Amino acid sequence: MVTGAVLLAVFATAAVAVTTTGLVRDDDRATRNVILFIGDGMGDSEITSARAYEYGMDGRLPGIDALPHDGRFTVHSLTRTGDPDYVADSAAAATAWASGKQTYDGAIGVDVDGEAHPTLLELAKKKGLRTGNVTTASVLDATPAAQMSHVAKRSCQEPEETSDKCPENALENGGSGSISEQMLTSRPDVVLGGGFEIFEDEEAESGEFAGVTLLEQAERRGFQVVQDQAALAAVEKADQKAPLLGLFADEHLPVDWVGPEATRTGGTAPPVPCEPNGRRSSLQPSLTQMTEKALSLLDGDKGFFLQVESASIDKSSHDADACGQIGEVIALDEAVQAARAFAEKDGNTTVLVTADHAQASQIVQAGADTRGLTTTVLTKEGVPMTLSYATGAKGVKQAHSGVQVTIAAEGPQAAAVTRLEKQTDLFDLISRVLELDTTG
Amino acid sequence: MVTGAVLLAVFATAAVAVTTTGLVRDDDRATRNVILFIGDGMGDSEITSARAYEYGMDGRLPGIDALPHDGRFTVHSLTRTGDPDYVADSAAAATAWASGKQTYDGAIGVDVDGEAHPTLLELAKKKGLRTGNVTTASVLDATPAAQMSHVAKRSCQEPEETSDKCPENALENGGSGSISEQMLTSRPDVVLGGGFEIFEDEEAESGEFAGVTLLEQAERRGFQVVQDQAALAAVEKADQKAPLLGLFADEHLPVDWVGPEATRTGGTAPPVPCEPNGRRSSLQPSLTQMTEKALSLLDGDKGFFLQVESASIDKSSHDADACGQIGEVIALDEAVQAARAFAEKDGNTTVLVTADHAQASQIVQAGADTRGLTTTVLTKEGVPMTLSYATGAKGVKQAHSGVQVTIAAEGPQAAAVTRLEKQTDLFDLISRVLELDTTG
Repeated sequence: MVTGAVLLAVFATAAVAVTTTGLVRDDDRATRNVILFIGDGMGDSEITSARAYEYGMDGRLPGIDALPHDGRFTVHSLTRTGDPDYVADSAAAATAWASGKQTYDGAIGVDVDGEAHPTLLELAKKKGLRTGNVTTASVLDATPAAQMSHVAKRSCQEPEETSDKCPENALENGGSGSISEQMLTSRPDVVLGGGFEIFEDEEAESGEFAGVTLLEQAERRGFQVVQDQAALAAVEKADQKAPLLGLFADEHLPVDWVGPEATRTGGTAPPVPCEPNGRRSSLQPSLTQMTEKALSLLDGDKGFFLQVESASIDKSSHDADACGQIGEVIALDEAVQAARAFAEKDGNTTVLVTADHAQASQIVQAGADTRGLTTTVLTKEGVPMTLSYATGAKGVKQAHSGVQVTIAAEGPQAAAVTRLEKQTDLFDLISRVLELDTTG
Repeated sequence: MVTGAVLLAVFATAAVAVTTTGLVRDDDRATRNVILFIGDGMGDSEITSARAYEYGMDGRLPGIDALPHDGRFTVHSLTRTGDPDYVADSAAAATAWASGKQTYDGAIGVDVDGEAHPTLLELAKKKGLRTGNVTTASVLDATPAAQMSHVAKRSCQEPEETSDKCPENALENGGSGSISEQMLTSRPDVVLGGGFEIFEDEEAESGEFAGVTLLEQAERRGFQVVQDQAALAAVEKADQKAPLLGLFADEHLPVDWVGPEATRTGGTAPPVPCEPNGRRSSLQPSLTQMTEKALSLLDGDKGFFLQVESASIDKSSHDADACGQIGEVIALDEAVQAARAFAEKDGNTTVLVTADHAQASQIVQAGADTRGLTTTVLTKEGVPMTLSYATGAKGVKQAHSGVQVTIAAEGPQAAAVTRLEKQTDLFDLISRVLELDTTG
C-alpha cells in the first residue's frame, strides 16, 4: 500500500512536468536514482596523472574511464557586479550545478543579488525522493553546503561567524541561519563527512535552540549522529524520522596517500612512490565505505538523489601535494566503481562523475625543473612522473585553473552527456532525469 | 570511364579489407575524404582561453565546438629504451597517429628500434587517394614531416644535417635521405606551409641531385613551387604529374596576433586586447586560405587525405605568448569552419580536429601573480583574463604538459570518436574511414 501511494505521488508530479514542459516522459517505472560524483579540483590534468600513476601509460581508471558517455563543462563564475570571472571557486561552481545559477566566488546557493534558489537536493526531497550528501571534507564545506543551504559567504558555517560575516542570513535577523543550521533544517536522509568540531563547539545564537550546541540540536531534532566506521556500519535505517549525520573527523577527513613535498627543485630529486597516510585511522570510513552505506540506506521504492564528493583532490593540489591529490582521485574512482556496481544491479540509476573546477597540477617532463614547485613520483609501472605546481605566487597556496572539465555518465538519460555544455546545465540534466519540478 | 576504373580500384581495396578484418564495409559510394586538423600544443586549456577570449564566457567556437562527436586521447611517448615517457614531443606524437606506433621524442616515422612504418598519407597515396599536407610551420617541421618521411631525429630536415645527425638516413649511406628529400619522393599532391630557406640554400649531398639545391630538385622533379598568396590562388591543378609545393615563409609563417609579453608580474598589469600582427604580410596566405585551396585542388572522384596543422599554438606557448597562442587557435577554428562547409556540400567527408599534445598555459584568477610568467589580456567581452606559464625553468622556454587532449569529429564513422583512446588509435580510425590497407 505504501508503494502504491508513492507511485501515485510520483505520477502526480510527473503529470505536472508534462503539463508545464509539454514533453512526454517515461513514467513506466517505480523509482529512479541519481548518484552525482564530484571530484573537487579534478581537472583532466589531475585525472591524467592519477591514471598514469596507478594504471600506467596505457592503463584506464576502472571507474571513471569505464562510463560509456562523456562530455565537458565550461566553468566560470561572476564578479559581485555580474561580470564574467574565468576562474571559479568551489562555492560558485557548486551553486552552478546545485541551483542552476551562475554566481560569485564564495556564494552558497544564492545568486549575485543574494537571492536563494532551490537546490537539486531540496527539489528531490520536495518531490518525495530520498537524499544523501557525502564528502571527504567537512559536511559544511562549500560543495556539500551548496546542496543544503543558502548563505552569502562560504565561511558562514556556524552561527557566530554568520552573525558576523553574513548578517542577512543570521537567525536573529530573520535569516535561515548558518550552513550548519540550514543543513539541520534541510534534513537530508544521509549526510556523511567531517566537521565534528563545529557541531561540538558551536551554539545557536538565536531561536528555539539558542545556547545549545549544534550537536545537541542535531540530536534533539532526531538525527542519528555517528562518529566512526563501526557506528556507521551498524546503522540500519536513515529517513526523515531519524536522518543520519556521520561526522568522522574534526574538520576534513585525512587523505589516503602521502608522498614527497613539492619544492623549487623537487622534480630533480630521485623518484619515490606514494605511501599510505599514517594519519588515517581505520575508525574513519573510506569514501567507498561512505558511498556504499549511503546507497544501501537510500535504496528503496522512492528513488534518491545522492551527491558524493572527493574533496581533497583540491585541497592537496592547493598544497602542491601530488600524492595526496592522486590518492584522492583514486579514492573517487573506487567509489565510482561501487556506485556502478549498485547501478548495474538496480537498472534505473544514473551515475554522473564530474569536477567543480580544475586545479594547478601539470605533468611535465620527468625530472624537470620548472618555475613552480615540482615533485617526482615513481608510478606503479616503475617510471618517474613529475608534477609541477605554479598557479600560486611565491609563499601563497596554489590556485585553481580555468580550463573546461570533464563529465562522464551512464544510466537513464546519460546519452545526453556529450560535447560541451555550461556547468549550470548539470542542474537541468539532473532535474530532467529525476523529473524535478523546477518551476516553483 | 575514369570514374568506373577508380570505383573498381576502390572496391578491390575494400574487398581486401573485408577479407583481412572480417568486417562488412559500406562500399556504396565513389569517394571518401578525411580532413585531419592538428592544433599543435592545443590542449583543453589552450582551447578554453581562446574560446573565452574571442567568444566570451558562454560563447562557443563556431568550428571546433560545433563538431557533433568528441572524445579524447592519452598522449605519451617512449624513452629510447622503450619505457613510458608521460610527456610527448610533437615528433613522437605525430608519429603516433601518422604511423600508429608509439616512439621516442624526436623520432619521425620510425619506432624505438629505428624501423620505419608507413604513414596515413603514404597509405592513402598507395591506395590511389589524393593527399595534402598543410601547416603554418615549415613544411619540414615535425608534424607535417611525420606524414612524409622517416628519420631518426626531427632536426634532420636537410641533407647536411642528416649526414651529420642521422647518418643511417643519409642518401650516401643508402638511406632514404633527409626529411626534405623524402618529402619530394613521397610526393603528396599538395604541400603548403613555410620552409623556403632550406629549399633555397641546401643541396643534396649524394644521388641523382647531388650539388643541386632542394628547390631546383623540386622543380626538376615536376613540383609547381609557389611563394605567395597570389601564386597560390592562381594554381588550377595539382596532381602526381605536377604536385604543388607552397613555401610562404623562410621558416614558419608569422602568427596572426600579438600582445603583451608575459613577465614575472605581467598578470597584474592593466589588461590589453590582442592586436593583429604587423609582421604578417598579405602576400602570405592564411591557414584558411591554404586549407580552402588544398580542398579545391584535392576534391574529385578519387577521395583524399588532407592534414592541416596550426603549428604556432605550440610555438607561441613555448614563448609564453598568450595572444600568439590564442590567435592561432582561432585561425585553426576558422579553417575548421571552412572544412565543415566543404564537408557539408560534399556529404562524404570526415572532419577530425585534435591536438598532438597539450601546452603550458593555464587560466588563473584575473590579475593574479603566480610563480610563472603571467599576462593579462582584455577579452572581446571586455573582461580581464590572466594566463600563466610556468612549465619551463627560469631562463628556459615553456614546455609541454602531459594532460590528455580532445578530439572532435563529424562525418562518416565520426560517431566512433567518443570516450578515451590512445593517440595511436587515430591511425586505426583514419585507416578504417579511408579503408587503407595497413597489412603491407
